[in-house]
Amino acid sequence: MSSATTYEATVSAPVNIAVIKYWGKRDTKLILPTNSSLSVTLDQDHLRSTTTARADPSFERDQLWLNGKEDEIKPGSRLATCIAEMKRLRRETVEAKHPTAPKLSEYNVHIASYNNFPTAAGLASSASGFAALIAALAQLYVLPASPSELSIIARQGSGSACRSLFGGFVAWQMGVDPAGSDSLAVQIAPQLHWPEMQALICVVSDDKKGTSSTSGMQRTVETSTLLQHRIKEVVPARMAAISQAILDRDFDTFARITMADSNQFHAVALDTEPPIFYMNDVSRAIIALIVEFNRLSIERGEGYKAAYTYDAGPNAVIYALAEDIPDIIQLIVSYFPQRPGEFKDVMRLFEVDDINTQANLPEGFNKAVAKRFEVGAVKGLIHTRVGDGPRRLGDEESLLAANGLPKTLL
Amino acid sequence: MSSATTYEATVSAPVNIAVIKYWGKRDTKLILPTNSSLSVTLDQDHLRSTTTARADPSFERDQLWLNGKEDEIKPGSRLATCIAEMKRLRRETVEAKHPTAPKLSEYNVHIASYNNFPTAAGLASSASGFAALIAALAQLYVLPASPSELSIIARQGSGSACRSLFGGFVAWQMGVDPAGSDSLAVQIAPQLHWPEMQALICVVSDDKKGTSSTSGMQRTVETSTLLQHRIKEVVPARMAAISQAILDRDFDTFARITMADSNQFHAVALDTEPPIFYMNDVSRAIIALIVEFNRLSIERGEGYKAAYTYDAGPNAVIYALAEDIPDIIQLIVSYFPQRPGEFKDVMRLFEVDDINTQANLPEGFNKAVAKRFEVGAVKGLIHTRVGDGPRRLGDEESLLAANGLPKTLL
Repeated sequence: MSSATTYEATVSAPVNIAVIKYWGKRDTKLILPTNSSLSVTLDQDHLRSTTTARADPSFERDQLWLNGKEDEIKPGSRLATCIAEMKRLRRETVEAKHPTAPKLSEYNVHIASYNNFPTAAGLASSASGFAALIAALAQLYVLPASPSELSIIARQGSGSACRSLFGGFVAWQMGVDPAGSDSLAVQIAPQLHWPEMQALICVVSDDKKGTSSTSGMQRTVETSTLLQHRIKEVVPARMAAISQAILDRDFDTFARITMADSNQFHAVALDTEPPIFYMNDVSRAIIALIVEFNRLSIERGEGYKAAYTYDAGPNAVIYALAEDIPDIIQLIVSYFPQRPGEFKDVMRLFEVDDINTQANLPEGFNKAVAKRFEVGAVKGLIHTRVGDGPRRLGDEESLLAANGLPKTLL
Repeated sequence: MSSATTYEATVSAPVNIAVIKYWGKRDTKLILPTNSSLSVTLDQDHLRSTTTARADPSFERDQLWLNGKEDEIKPGSRLATCIAEMKRLRRETVEAKHPTAPKLSEYNVHIASYNNFPTAAGLASSASGFAALIAALAQLYVLPASPSELSIIARQGSGSACRSLFGGFVAWQMGVDPAGSDSLAVQIAPQLHWPEMQALICVVSDDKKGTSSTSGMQRTVETSTLLQHRIKEVVPARMAAISQAILDRDFDTFARITMADSNQFHAVALDTEPPIFYMNDVSRAIIALIVEFNRLSIERGEGYKAAYTYDAGPNAVIYALAEDIPDIIQLIVSYFPQRPGEFKDVMRLFEVDDINTQANLPEGFNKAVAKRFEVGAVKGLIHTRVGDGPRRLGDEESLLAANGLPKTLL
């Protein structure tokens, strides 16, 4: 029978966008951060990595294909570490305890992974990608491990991947153990705690490739004279305050801290030698629009209505409650006209072919805070919401064909 | 005789560009800063404010004209404070001690001031302007005051003006007295200590008016969680280190600290709520060029060759030694073509009509660090050098006509 059994699992895993930023490692091999961080998991219905992992005695070596193209698993690489750690867990927590369990840890694996968003969009795919890899192997190996335990391994693939093992609102606790056993993700609140939380991703064109976050953050650790103050004094207070704001569904506080921490992350990047810039003039203009949008709502006594945040690139992610999203989309489109069809109105807010017909500014908006840009400056808008953690998919979703190669290669 | 005597003085005063930045007041009325700062005085042969001050019993009120246009002296304004303080010094240090001295402190004054650079260039004219005002009144009143004593009054007009009362390399010591008696400028080294020090100002176009430095710096004081660390820990060490680098004519250290402090000033501006941006994509590109230029010279074992610094606007000021300036001009022009005649080759480095024919990159320069911009992105280049302090000019340079009104009004 065993040769006829296919040991395989397919999962999807979500993207997460941090509101308290991870920037700096205290251990670059184990990927132990210099500060805790906190993120919102976005809905896999819109943005996801899907991964199939199969173990088979006939496979000659571990192999991985990303978007149909083989990605070499180099010895000692983060990828190799993650696969080896998952095999170890299989051996220690399953096979050692249940002698009849198949020795999957001794088989090589084939892994096929696919992101449903273009890499060119500049969205960090390593977080969802490594989360999907770890979740797929955990399913394949039927591990009795909690998401927090798995997050310790995902972290060693890509730091922020650990946060994509949960839905909702997720903290990556930096921990204190030099071995990293307590540097893991925990859920602060589940997806359904605050389902009105939505996000609008503004995909921004950029002329040049920015500094990679891996090398950039270590340059900041080595040269910034402000980073240590951020790590020791600022982040711990913000982690506590924004966690409470999430539990209280206090958008005003959530927004204030989110924007302040995005600003401070880019501030310490700039305080690096040589300085690192991820935001460009388009990013700055979007900030000016959100600042003015909030100024009006604060003036009305309604507090902050939108919170921008920027990762290691020029894209803006704007968090807002569902009721305010249509106004924010109209605001963005007013300054950043979209090619017809470029805004995928997945939540059916507008139901028009050309979103530009919906470009309206709130009453009293000071138009002079930014100039109107050309079509293409914001080359895409993705409207999504807070989502759940990794999902096990049915066999029909497998990315691997019967011969063990990715279906996309057929 | 007295009615026939004209009590008048004309002076010019220089621009200064800080290398350790002033950003934040601990007393907004007295203009007492939250940290010490340090600047290089630029040559008045190229950039200057010229001011004539005349006292006459026939004048009905104090009046001031800036570039030929009357600027109202509002009661309680910084301008009114400076004029009142200078009259007080005249009364206390001259008239009270020499009973025969004319009571100029009782006369109203007419003041005409003129900047030889366009306000639109975005160069801070308030520093040279207030320095010229104070120096002109000090000459008019024949005050026995040192430049440091005068700097206490200039500071109350515009903080950085206190540094324009000296040539060469100038520190503004923040002081500790709540009344501001020890918050004054001192010369670290005179102009001729390091005459090879030159500067290239890149005048950068900007779409929008930035946040004024007066309001911006106070927002940083109120909201940045990083500023206090900068004030307490970072600046004192940098003030000591860059002062020593100047005394040692150690350009490498001077450059490193200058760039780090420019970056950090913009970092704390970004760490402000809402964030303040002064640099734009053109500013960022110039930084990338200088970083690459320095990378090459460091690789050759020659250390840093150029130091950028940015004030509260997008213009770059690049400090470099005379021998490296031609290469830097060629580098900038390679990426930022100039309209013919726009580069005023005042020091006769190139002696060509079209500087664009001189656009050359150093060997081994990685061209991909920036894109080539359109003509007009850098809309002017000003090449200058370290300069001297305020100069008394001859009567023939007076900006006031016999009738007491500015000559430009005639």
